[in-house]
Parts: sequence; C-alpha cells; structure tokens
Amino acid sequence: MKRIFTVIAALSAAVSSFAQEALWSNVQVESPVVNEDGTVTFRYQAPKAVKVTVSGDFLPTRKMETPHGTFDVPGVAELREGEKGVWEYTTDFKVASDMYTYSFNVDGDNIIDKNNIWVNRDISTLTSAFIVPGGRGDLYTIQRVPHGTVSKVWYDSGTAGFARRLTVYTPPCYNKSAKTKYPVLYVLHGIGGDEDAWIEQGRAAQILDNLIAQGKAKPMIVVFTNGNISQEAAPGANATGYNRPTTHLPQTMEGTFETSFPEIVKFIDSNYRTMAKKQSRAICGLSMGGFHTLYISLNNPDMFAYSGMFSAAIGVSDTSISPIYQDFDTKLATYFSRKPSLLWIGCGNTDSLYQANVDFIAKLKEAGYPHEYYENEGGHIWRNWRIYLTEFVPKLFR
Amino acid sequence: MKRIFTVIAALSAAVSSFAQEALWSNVQVESPVVNEDGTVTFRYQAPKAVKVTVSGDFLPTRKMETPHGTFDVPGVAELREGEKGVWEYTTDFKVASDMYTYSFNVDGDNIIDKNNIWVNRDISTLTSAFIVPGGRGDLYTIQRVPHGTVSKVWYDSGTAGFARRLTVYTPPCYNKSAKTKYPVLYVLHGIGGDEDAWIEQGRAAQILDNLIAQGKAKPMIVVFTNGNISQEAAPGANATGYNRPTTHLPQTMEGTFETSFPEIVKFIDSNYRTMAKKQSRAICGLSMGGFHTLYISLNNPDMFAYSGMFSAAIGVSDTSISPIYQDFDTKLATYFSRKPSLLWIGCGNTDSLYQANVDFIAKLKEAGYPHEYYENEGGHIWRNWRIYLTEFVPKLFR
Repeated sequence: MKRIFTVIAALSAAVSSFAQEALWSNVQVESPVVNEDGTVTFRYQAPKAVKVTVSGDFLPTRKMETPHGTFDVPGVAELREGEKGVWEYTTDFKVASDMYTYSFNVDGDNIIDKNNIWVNRDISTLTSAFIVPGGRGDLYTIQRVPHGTVSKVWYDSGTAGFARRLTVYTPPCYNKSAKTKYPVLYVLHGIGGDEDAWIEQGRAAQILDNLIAQGKAKPMIVVFTNGNISQEAAPGANATGYNRPTTHLPQTMEGTFETSFPEIVKFIDSNYRTMAKKQSRAICGLSMGGFHTLYISLNNPDMFAYSGMFSAAIGVSDTSISPIYQDFDTKLATYFSRKPSLLWIGCGNTDSLYQANVDFIAKLKEAGYPHEYYENEGGHIWRNWRIYLTEFVPKLFR
Repeated sequence: MKRIFTVIAALSAAVSSFAQEALWSNVQVESPVVNEDGTVTFRYQAPKAVKVTVSGDFLPTRKMETPHGTFDVPGVAELREGEKGVWEYTTDFKVASDMYTYSFNVDGDNIIDKNNIWVNRDISTLTSAFIVPGGRGDLYTIQRVPHGTVSKVWYDSGTAGFARRLTVYTPPCYNKSAKTKYPVLYVLHGIGGDEDAWIEQGRAAQILDNLIAQGKAKPMIVVFTNGNISQEAAPGANATGYNRPTTHLPQTMEGTFETSFPEIVKFIDSNYRTMAKKQSRAICGLSMGGFHTLYISLNNPDMFAYSGMFSAAIGVSDTSISPIYQDFDTKLATYFSRKPSLLWIGCGNTDSLYQANVDFIAKLKEAGYPHEYYENEGGHIWRNWRIYLTEFVPKLFR
C-alpha cells in the first residue's frame, strides 16, 4: 500500500490541495450513497460548521415567496454532525429511481458536494447530481449497450456573423456503413441553457443509446442547438470567456434564432448522412425551446414532420418584435394543412406554464387540429423533460 | 428589469437554490477577476466563516512533508472579510498569462469557487480554473478561429471485453473535403487521468485550433485515449457509476494497455480518413502516459514516426510484470535502427522525475541515439504539459 501511495503521489500533479488531502486524510467521506433499503445518505465534512442542510429535487418541493411571485423550490433537510466533523442526513423515505440534483448549505453558504465528482451546470449554477438505479434512472445511466458518438461541432452562422457550437449525437451504427442515411431530431434547450444542457442534465445521449438498444427508438442523428444567437457557445466555450449570463436575458425569443434555424438544418444536411426531407426531420424543445419549436415549425411548415413542445413557454411572445411571431392563426392553419405526422405536447400539472398549455390544447381541439397531449405530475423541471424526451423519441420516424 | 426577472424565474428550472439565490440576492460576487494592473482578485461569500484561504498554482509552490516524501504543493494566501461576508484576496504581484487552477479553504473545508462556473476535474478532484490573457494564456483560450470537432467515441476493445471511450479531435478542415486524409497524433494522460484530461486541463483542442490557425501546426486528427484498461471511460461516463479512483491504482503500467494499443490505432484507421502509415503517426503522453508512449513506441517500432515523452515516469516499470517491459536495450536499438523522425523529451527541472529523465537522456547520448530534449522550470504540473504539447505539435508531420 505504501508503494501505491508513493507512486500516486509522485505521478500526481502537484496542483491540488484536495488531491493531497484525499491521499493522506484518514476520513473517507462517501456521498451520496444509495442504501440497500432505498434511502439515500448525504455526507459533508465541515468540522467548524454550525448548521449544514441539503436541498434538492429528491425532497418534496416547498413554496417560495418572492417579489415576483410564488415559486416551487426544492425542499430542505438538516444534516447532523457526527465523528470527525462529518455531517450526515439519510432520507426517511425510499427515493424513487430517477436522476436528481442537490446542493449543501453550510452556515448560509450554498455549495456543491465536494465528495461527488458529478457536477451539473444549469444556466450558470452548479449542483451535484446522482442517479437512483432500478427503474427510470436506468434509462439515464450509461449501460453496456452500443454507444453513439457525441460531438461538439462548430457551424458558420451567417446570421450571427461567427461560428457557433452544436452538440451532435450520431447513433451507434452510424459508422457501420458509409452509405446509410439517418433521420434527424433537433432538440432545443430552455432559457439560459445552451448546447450542453440536454447532454448534461437531459441525459439525452444515454436516453437515445438505451432506447435504441431496446428497439424502442429508430437510430437517428440528434442535434442540440444553442438558442442564444448572440452566443457562440456555452459559457466557458466561447471567445468572450467564462461569463455568467444569470441576470441578463440572452438574445432570444426576439425572432432571430427562429429565423436563422434553417441555416443549422442546411449545415447538418451538408455534413452528415441525413435523410434530408420533412418526413425524416423532427424538432422538440423544453420551455423557451418549446416556444422556439412552435414558431420554427409554424414558419417552416415543410421542414419538420414531428414537433414536440415540452413545458413550452407558450404565450410569452410579443408579436411586435418579429414577423415570425405574427399571423399566428393563419400559420397554424397552414401548418396543419400540410399534414404534419405529430404535434406532441407535454406538461406537468403544477408547471407555472400549465394553464398556457391547457389553453393551447383547447385552441387546437376547437379547430380540430390533430395533436397528442401528455400530462403528468410536477412542474417545470428536468425530471419531467427527460420523461417527455423518453415519450417523444419512440414516436418518431415510424 | 422586473419583467426580465419574472420571465427568467418562470422559465428557470425550479431545482436549484443556487439559481434562486442568484436571481434575488443583492450581493453580486465576481470571482476571480483579472484586474487591469495584472493582479488577480479572488472572492468568496461566507458570512459566518472564521478563516478563508485560497490555494492554487498561481501562487509560488511550498514544500509539503508527508510520510511518503516531500512534495511541492501550491502556495496559500489568506482572504480578508469585507462587507456582507464577502472575503477577498488580491495578489500583490502580476500573474503571468497562463491557465491556473485553485480552490478555497473555508474553516478547514476545501471547496471550489462557487462563483466560477469553470470547474476542472483532475483524477477525482475538483478545482476552479481561470486564464490570464495576453500571452501564453491566449493559446489556451477559445479564439475566433476555425474550430475542430471534439467527439466522444466508443470502440470495442477486444482486450478489455467491452466498449471503451476515446476523445477524438478532427481539425477544422476535416469536413471540407470527403477525400483528404490526415495524420494522427495519439495523446496519453497521466496516472488517474482519463480520456477527458487533455481536453479539460490540457486545453488540447484550443492549442490545436490556435496552432493550426497560426500555421504553426499541420491539420491533424488527435486521439486522446483512456490508459486504464479496466475502465470503460472517465469516472461518470462508465456503467459502473461515478466511482472515485483516488486511492486505487488503476489497471495500468502492467502492460495490458500498451499491448492492446494497436487495436485503437486500427479502430481510428478504420473510422477516420487517416494516412495510415508510420510517417503520419505520432504519439505522446505525460507522466504515466510518457511511460506508455515509450513502451508502445519501442514495442511497435514501425507504428509511430514521432514520440513525445512529457515528464515521463521513466524507471518505475517492473520488468517481471509483462514481456512488454523486457529486453529494453535491444528494443531501444531496434527502435532507433528504424530511424524514427523524432523522439522528443520534455521535463521540468524541479520535477520529482527529473533525475530519471536526465539519466535516460544520458543513456541516449551515450548510445548516439538522436533525440530532442526540452528542459524548463517547474515540476510535475499541467502548466508544463500544455507547454510541452505546444512545443511538440509544430514539429510533427513535416
């Protein structure tokens, strides 16, 4: 064992106090731990702390009053201090199989779990993540099935005037034959998100790998765009540095991204072996991306046969901003006159956008426009968006 | 402004206390900040903390005594508490242009900078990172130049018995023509690292993009392998979960990875437009990866025309473990008899492996074997490995 330490120490980069601590500390803190009885234990070492809590979507939500309205936020649980300053909390309930995110609060200070290397970024916020296996969570886990390739790809955006980044998933079989062509699904993120969001929090590559392996989804190319046209790429992957966009609305929902969308489709059709026709193209998105999906579909009625709106931000558009938002009813009529294969709408029943979605469904029903509606519990959260993707993808390209 | 907050709040996922705090908190903590005078300011909000320090490789190193020897570790500086519990430290020196990593210590608790979304993973340790622009750091920054594609690709490893992950960089021009073939550079990580290391900490994609844009490097495919043959992929990207390998030596430096290396070369030659010949192949690696580079090169003298050893872990092999480590002198003679284009060795003068590298150079000199040696200041750190890659790449495929 001594030799092992010596070798690791000698070969480890001498840049991190963390690494040194991990090597020579006597305290091994494991967190989080999914226990055999289905509960989950969280631990945090903070010998001088007075109060440590954990907050995350594995706990029931609570209401938070703000000057801007009441919002659902994750519940909070207190950790208790044990030996060597290691604080601990175990849920008093079985945590259902799923993917969850959480953070600690140490004496008022919100921080991620330093013992968990899975760090999740949402907007510019970091949280820690874990998966409870044995059910839905297995779909979000890397399994020993054939894996697609996930690539960070740059396209020259004539609209933006600079190169912008996409994430592209090609299915496991993509390189088996140089001739086979594939249908393409475009997947759009929510406000503040970027081309990483669906891969990181959405677990889209795992969902695709697993659904394809189970024969539930057709092999397809999946393209994850960046909906903020003023941005090259996710924070940290652009020439303007590691900017935090939190309190600034990105350049989006003003029409430019939607108007420029065909240049992305053209790029993909030029650089991948795609079936470049409406019947082999789908688009979907969450929240703002659902809003984008709607207007891109309506303004390009011959481009996508399948459209999916997940907790879509319907009704927040200002028609004066861009022609793309105008003549809604006419465009809707034209869209349906071209007989799309599927307009799919998913929403949670406590989502703040629930009523807007219900109203839109009523409008579709009244006009006799065919659509599918999927309603489930919960709000405007990634747990639901992963479910919607899992429901939507098997319906495509049949 | 109120509308902006409301829209963001309504459309943000209700999963993060961080996000809520960021939206409604009055304190805007910006950290780190590279100041106009060349100093750098670090801030951390912790109203109840008694002591906050920052440690990182932007500070001069200090010696740390351990039961296993004396090691260089990063220096430490104290932050002072200001208004609203925001602690602050500004360097009293100009920080040279480069990429750095750091972490805070709050009352004995090592944590990353929660205000910096750039989180770096080394082995299973998280640190925060930043770049000081204006010099060498610019080479590690995403510039507005053509970008290559970075892909996570899985190959079936006959040796391991399961699929394993590679990171593959294809140059910006790769899709311009369906016929052009490219040379390939294989880049290996150090102990505990994985196929993400050179992309994340090594900034290899940025280095390649920028050197190619400047005309200093030939367009090439670059393959980043995972040197732990028992692993499918980086922690978090394998079917066995988010395991932390810190205190376990991976299955490596026992011959299997080196022996199986040709299966990776075969996969790349089968799936990319490569110039599949010795003159168009290069290999390099840091620390353990330098050790791998040496033995892969010696045991496959007709495979690579260029080999680069960066702070290589020379001399830690046990020849009894694998035939691949045996008959060193004979293999070295055979290797040089096939006239490789370049054996390049880089090492820092305070590296704990410095003497081993100097001894190896002496051995090469005595035998009259041609090689290039690059020595600089500093130790076994990423700052040096990025420099070595930057020096090595322009010499390839000329």
